Amino acid sequence: MSLLIKNGRIITATDDYLADILVEGEQVAAIGKDLIADAEQTIDATGMLVMPGGIDPHVHLDMPFMGTFSSDTHETGTRAALFGGTTMVIDFVLQKQGHSLREALDEWNSRARGTTVGDYSFHMAVTDFNPGTKAEIKTMVEEEGITSFKTFMAYKGALMIDDRQMTALMQEVKQQGGMVTVHATNGDVIDYLVAKHLAEGKTSPLYHYLSQPEVTEAEASARFTDLANYTGCPAYIVHLTCEGALNAVRNATRRNQKVYVETCIQYLTLDASKYDKGFESAKWVMSPPLRELKDQETLWAGINQGLVNIVATDHCPFMWKQKMMGEDNFAKIPNGHPAIENRMELLFSEGVKKNRITLNKYVEVACTNPAKIFGMFPRKGTIAIGSDADIIILDPEQKHTISAATHHMNVDYSAYEGWELTGKVKTVLLRGRIAIDNNECLVPKGYGQFIKRNKVSGKI
Amino acid sequence: MSLLIKNGRIITATDDYLADILVEGEQVAAIGKDLIADAEQTIDATGMLVMPGGIDPHVHLDMPFMGTFSSDTHETGTRAALFGGTTMVIDFVLQKQGHSLREALDEWNSRARGTTVGDYSFHMAVTDFNPGTKAEIKTMVEEEGITSFKTFMAYKGALMIDDRQMTALMQEVKQQGGMVTVHATNGDVIDYLVAKHLAEGKTSPLYHYLSQPEVTEAEASARFTDLANYTGCPAYIVHLTCEGALNAVRNATRRNQKVYVETCIQYLTLDASKYDKGFESAKWVMSPPLRELKDQETLWAGINQGLVNIVATDHCPFMWKQKMMGEDNFAKIPNGHPAIENRMELLFSEGVKKNRITLNKYVEVACTNPAKIFGMFPRKGTIAIGSDADIIILDPEQKHTISAATHHMNVDYSAYEGWELTGKVKTVLLRGRIAIDNNECLVPKGYGQFIKRNKVSGKI
Amino acid sequence: MSLLIKNGRIITATDDYLADILVEGEQVAAIGKDLIADAEQTIDATGMLVMPGGIDPHVHLDMPFMGTFSSDTHETGTRAALFGGTTMVIDFVLQKQGHSLREALDEWNSRARGTTVGDYSFHMAVTDFNPGTKAEIKTMVEEEGITSFKTFMAYKGALMIDDRQMTALMQEVKQQGGMVTVHATNGDVIDYLVAKHLAEGKTSPLYHYLSQPEVTEAEASARFTDLANYTGCPAYIVHLTCEGALNAVRNATRRNQKVYVETCIQYLTLDASKYDKGFESAKWVMSPPLRELKDQETLWAGINQGLVNIVATDHCPFMWKQKMMGEDNFAKIPNGHPAIENRMELLFSEGVKKNRITLNKYVEVACTNPAKIFGMFPRKGTIAIGSDADIIILDPEQKHTISAATHHMNVDYSAYEGWELTGKVKTVLLRGRIAIDNNECLVPKGYGQFIKRNKVSGKI
Amino acid sequence: MSLLIKNGRIITATDDYLADILVEGEQVAAIGKDLIADAEQTIDATGMLVMPGGIDPHVHLDMPFMGTFSSDTHETGTRAALFGGTTMVIDFVLQKQGHSLREALDEWNSRARGTTVGDYSFHMAVTDFNPGTKAEIKTMVEEEGITSFKTFMAYKGALMIDDRQMTALMQEVKQQGGMVTVHATNGDVIDYLVAKHLAEGKTSPLYHYLSQPEVTEAEASARFTDLANYTGCPAYIVHLTCEGALNAVRNATRRNQKVYVETCIQYLTLDASKYDKGFESAKWVMSPPLRELKDQETLWAGINQGLVNIVATDHCPFMWKQKMMGEDNFAKIPNGHPAIENRMELLFSEGVKKNRITLNKYVEVACTNPAKIFGMFPRKGTIAIGSDADIIILDPEQKHTISAATHHMNVDYSAYEGWELTGKVKTVLLRGRIAIDNNECLVPKGYGQFIKRNKVSGKI
Repeated sequence: MSLLIKNGRIITATDDYLADILVEGEQVAAIGKDLIADAEQTIDATGMLVMPGGIDPHVHLDMPFMGTFSSDTHETGTRAALFGGTTMVIDFVLQKQGHSLREALDEWNSRARGTTVGDYSFHMAVTDFNPGTKAEIKTMVEEEGITSFKTFMAYKGALMIDDRQMTALMQEVKQQGGMVTVHATNGDVIDYLVAKHLAEGKTSPLYHYLSQPEVTEAEASARFTDLANYTGCPAYIVHLTCEGALNAVRNATRRNQKVYVETCIQYLTLDASKYDKGFESAKWVMSPPLRELKDQETLWAGINQGLVNIVATDHCPFMWKQKMMGEDNFAKIPNGHPAIENRMELLFSEGVKKNRITLNKYVEVACTNPAKIFGMFPRKGTIAIGSDADIIILDPEQKHTISAATHHMNVDYSAYEGWELTGKVKTVLLRGRIAIDNNECLVPKGYGQFIKRNKVSGKI
Repeated sequence: MSLLIKNGRIITATDDYLADILVEGEQVAAIGKDLIADAEQTIDATGMLVMPGGIDPHVHLDMPFMGTFSSDTHETGTRAALFGGTTMVIDFVLQKQGHSLREALDEWNSRARGTTVGDYSFHMAVTDFNPGTKAEIKTMVEEEGITSFKTFMAYKGALMIDDRQMTALMQEVKQQGGMVTVHATNGDVIDYLVAKHLAEGKTSPLYHYLSQPEVTEAEASARFTDLANYTGCPAYIVHLTCEGALNAVRNATRRNQKVYVETCIQYLTLDASKYDKGFESAKWVMSPPLRELKDQETLWAGINQGLVNIVATDHCPFMWKQKMMGEDNFAKIPNGHPAIENRMELLFSEGVKKNRITLNKYVEVACTNPAKIFGMFPRKGTIAIGSDADIIILDPEQKHTISAATHHMNVDYSAYEGWELTGKVKTVLLRGRIAIDNNECLVPKGYGQFIKRNKVSGKI
Repeated sequence: MSLLIKNGRIITATDDYLADILVEGEQVAAIGKDLIADAEQTIDATGMLVMPGGIDPHVHLDMPFMGTFSSDTHETGTRAALFGGTTMVIDFVLQKQGHSLREALDEWNSRARGTTVGDYSFHMAVTDFNPGTKAEIKTMVEEEGITSFKTFMAYKGALMIDDRQMTALMQEVKQQGGMVTVHATNGDVIDYLVAKHLAEGKTSPLYHYLSQPEVTEAEASARFTDLANYTGCPAYIVHLTCEGALNAVRNATRRNQKVYVETCIQYLTLDASKYDKGFESAKWVMSPPLRELKDQETLWAGINQGLVNIVATDHCPFMWKQKMMGEDNFAKIPNGHPAIENRMELLFSEGVKKNRITLNKYVEVACTNPAKIFGMFPRKGTIAIGSDADIIILDPEQKHTISAATHHMNVDYSAYEGWELTGKVKTVLLRGRIAIDNNECLVPKGYGQFIKRNKVSGKI
Repeated sequence: MSLLIKNGRIITATDDYLADILVEGEQVAAIGKDLIADAEQTIDATGMLVMPGGIDPHVHLDMPFMGTFSSDTHETGTRAALFGGTTMVIDFVLQKQGHSLREALDEWNSRARGTTVGDYSFHMAVTDFNPGTKAEIKTMVEEEGITSFKTFMAYKGALMIDDRQMTALMQEVKQQGGMVTVHATNGDVIDYLVAKHLAEGKTSPLYHYLSQPEVTEAEASARFTDLANYTGCPAYIVHLTCEGALNAVRNATRRNQKVYVETCIQYLTLDASKYDKGFESAKWVMSPPLRELKDQETLWAGINQGLVNIVATDHCPFMWKQKMMGEDNFAKIPNGHPAIENRMELLFSEGVKKNRITLNKYVEVACTNPAKIFGMFPRKGTIAIGSDADIIILDPEQKHTISAATHHMNVDYSAYEGWELTGKVKTVLLRGRIAIDNNECLVPKGYGQFIKRNKVSGKI
């Protein structure tokens, strides 16, 4: 099986050149000017951008949460991702407190294996760190290829670990060659504000926002960063949203520390004015909530400063009926919004086309850094000889409009309904096979592979 | 003319893979596994690292300074650079106060044209910004392909411009699509300390060091950064050496600012204990001087934080006889040290082999970022289809020893005499031609080309 | 009853002048040059410093802790305080988790009433904030004159409250006109390190120190400061010891915040080298532990910067036999050291005589600020018409030596054994009565009064 | 000569009590409850605040500037000051470049001696630091009692010294026991912006404001602070106006540095919206210009943080006709505004009555700190036995309106016209004599004395 992409403008996190790409089997075999090759398939990419498939390292598929499940399964979610140019995702396995990591992994495997369309991996969320859990870290790293361990500083009683567990976990994960990632918000303060607002009869989505003020994220980000510095553990903050939190990371540079930072596409493009729409605002109820315009500026700047390393989604969709569970109580609105399909095109249109970031930076934060930081490089995240031929072909000038009517995610609203974008993903290859073309998905359920990841060094 | 490099491990700022490279004419034509090609020459790179040629954006060749000339000419300097794996340099043209940029450029052209062995470009040092100079900025950018303008905050009466000129220059350079770079030390304070020390009879090289305390660099770096923020001009600090100065840049990240930072190989590897050797210390008399071990740590961390973007040399060699001019007065010691030949191997041995930086980061700071920041990308700085075939083949395990007895720089001492390094540049290609092989230079005087550079956006 | 102090050099937090002071009854009635008055007693203070009585706002008397009681009772502790020039103390009432503030206050009253020799007040330590506790805050402020509420971010399960309770408490205390004070160390991290060290067989006092690294205090101080900023509650950090923690407060000045800071005399004068003495180091086992020389410098500077406002003691003495409880396990060593008697003379000798602080600053941090910040001013903390005649007469040149053999604290060792000081408290007045003279205590057990305190505004 | 002030509420920087004050000759002789004294005069101060006379350490009287003289002479200025409760001022002697300090002092003496009504001292502005000037520093300190040396980082060619001179001056002043004060704005950048605006035809007062953006002050404040830290010289920033500049001082606290900070009453009460009034805005043309509301907040916070130590005026009045010199060119508008008479009442009304600062803080920043920082304490700046009886009696409830029609300054407009204040100075004593009463000045021209000042330690 071979395939030739002709005349594209190839963009990696570093490079930008015109050439042909020859794919043989699942990998890139050759790149060159006017390659002469007997390929079985040929794609003319003249005028197109040819880039690595996107990697979204922060998605929640078929996730049990607040008494329901996020509405995209591994099948529908990864298929929608492919439509939007994301060829791989990292989903979160959530340990249940009182149970083992293994049990959780088994549960997630039972949903994901044989159903995913795109490639995937798991982060392991450690919600109960005890001697048993500690012993499992090594197994996860060495046998399962799961090298990143998610922690929550919020959701007490369900997901949260305290600073004692955090410190202990960091020391063990460092020892085993992994990385600790964090949902960095101060759960205790948020719990207090939620309870206070509800007690005062303030039940609308606006109070979801007002229950998670910037300080709750800034504080927790600083605390996590302090502990990472003390333990020396490779560290990563997921869905960082605001100036206060990024400043915690910036301040830490003064003591020669490096903490990796992920933001999400919504924090770059939406703001808290969305909470001014009555219950419709439930569409954007997520944690952390959307922030202010000043925070958007900070995040774009952070990308160019090299301090914000990844743009993900925290994709966690719920049907409107599910969102309605919180009609009388914002605390019962399932948290999350759909974006797995939109990320690559939103970031291209809002980032590259508006001159906020370069094309190379686009690939770096959306494709390459996720692969490097999480131990999948060079198999994933780039276009290079021997790498998986996960490739997107994007028309940089085509305009299109986001709508729930046309998207492929299993959710009945769009958080970006009516947005007009410039730049459309036309064709997507996954491991050498055309997965998306002509607005159709050409690979079946179960085509997606679980990607074992390597140990990480905390340097990329 | 074609050439095939077989079986190398190819490293770019992003990638790391095994493949063959086909060079046709001056450029890379194809990259692939087991490339079948009728090349005129073939190099077996099995076990070798194949990387882009180094770019040293901070060298002073044949430079009139303190009544003498730096001892490497454009010929000897760029030839030595090639031996060490640096295929291109950016030299500094110095405007003479009271004279035009054009005059200075003519003078430098008269020395460099037809004599350089490796490729080169010029930064234009603006030492006298007036309406005449202002009018020349556009010409330099658009006609000469010189898009970076160096300023000095020290050397009053010779090179220094004041903050008024700095602000005005920044506004003009921004307008014309260029970048302002800076020697950021407070010249007034240094002049005072020099005069004070000499008046007190403190004439040894140690007092060179003590006349340029950290505060002189930290202050000027902060001031430059403030002005760059106010004007919005793309900005770059050359030879940043210390924690105080990097902290100025780190602090500026809080206001969403990006300033590019260059350090030099000596500040990463040597420290101020060198000033404890009597007059022998003159070997390391340079400005800024060597700093402390804490500053080395800061600089290595800064590289991994993405805040230190380039490792250059500030190569400015003087024969021991020239250094002796300051035997009785440190202020008469010509400033500078030889490193143009050593940079790539030193950084490899001290950085990569000691696990301080990754191979990708190595290429990024030594090859790619200089090309990107200064407007030569993608022609220079990477290995990609269509880029100039400036390529080094480095044996990562070969041990060797630095010595003036064996180096190719035109200077009779080495600042790193006796250092044992791991990793040796074996073969160097410049624009498709084997320039160095088997410890011989195979390209003639005059082979080097002047590379016109593009406008810069301040984003990479 | 009247008393005349003649010819002293009177020092307040602001003033410095020679005059006579006439005391009538319990208060200062007149101050003047050559006062003519028919006083019943006259003291010649020629050559002496006449200053307000010291106030130590951080002492633990007769406190149940770790299965024992601190060895100074309210009687012995306040008597020893008087010998050292401290005329008033603020002791801590500790709520028992699951019990009311009232119960705790009753318990403390049962020990303190009728037994104290010097004047005193209580801070109320809130260790269990719930609706019941919340309702008691107002009573404490308005009826009991207890306007400061101590919190612990450490000692989980015994004293610690979480951030949810902290936030809620701050909002209530602000509402009622009080102040929240804090033991700011991250208890979770400390608990982890203690358990880890013990599990590794590291049981000596040195590991007490190593279980509370600077980060545990810096982090908690920053977190507390963040929450105080969010709630707007008047805030105070007790026994701040280190650069990292003070930097949290310094950083907060950038957002226009004011947090009051107390350090203790031991952190200004002793350092962690004390933990290098085998089990003898138990003498200095306290929390936070002693720090480094750099931290001493920071604290002295902080006083002169106006950022460290009070020098207290955290006096909490234990007999050597009690300390021995932890012979095999540092975690069982009762925490605390004796200093209530030494503070004023140590601070004078180490601070004033060594030119680190002025005489006015001495009075400010040792006498006046405690009164102002905690709502006892102008009754206490100064020498002024109508204020309580709490006055010390200190010979600024007299040398003396600290020793357990001569001190009046009920503890069988001194933390400063053999220290030679310059400056000795000769005579002490408490509410107009000579309490100490000629090295004798002249007021009986029970002379001390409970001082009701006013609401605080957070401004002084 | 004796005088008794009965029943007042006496406020010092520390104290607050009800008492009588007996003045004998020029000093305070006794303070007490119901003092019995045979005083020649008695003032009933029931219901009044009795406070130290204000000290304004930043005024320009009869100053040659921009081709004219400030319109208040030493006579009219100090008389107006007395009306407003300011009993002493420190005026600036300006060295002329190329001339000695002595010449300048002689000139200022010729205008001030025998004409001032209130007490006064001089700062010496060093505008030309050379070996001759250096030799005069000691004379100024030891013989003339002038211990503070003002520097300008702006006004190149007239007043500005460069960083070389600054560093040298700091070392000499430190040596001699003095303090260096600074007008901290980057003159080079300002000169550039002024010239640019004028060249663009932007000549209105608005462009005065736009020519001195916050960065010009923030940068220079940081630079000055750096040099003060390096030299260890006691340092003081005059008329600090903005967040950026105060942050430079706040940042310096992290390296254990203390820099004294003065702001002026206008920066606390007025803002840049005044520059929106066409040429009328010339009334508020001063340097630095008025800033933003955020800066006001920063300055009030800075006072309570202990980081802003003094509130002065930079009083420098010009008649409207003089201001008109710049009708066609903002750069020709004489800089300055009249406030010497208004400061104490404005600060009382805007600060104390609006609960931004306490009464003690009011006295501290308006009276006591100027005396302490500049070496006049305890003679000046407080109410204490033996201190000069410089006393104001202020009715805290009396409302009144500021107007040029009623003020006593020699200037035909008021910068605060129509402002309604609460709190009026009723009676003023200067060295024991009633200077102001019943809205009349009762002391003659020439009553004011020159106050020799002491060496300073940089600690208060």
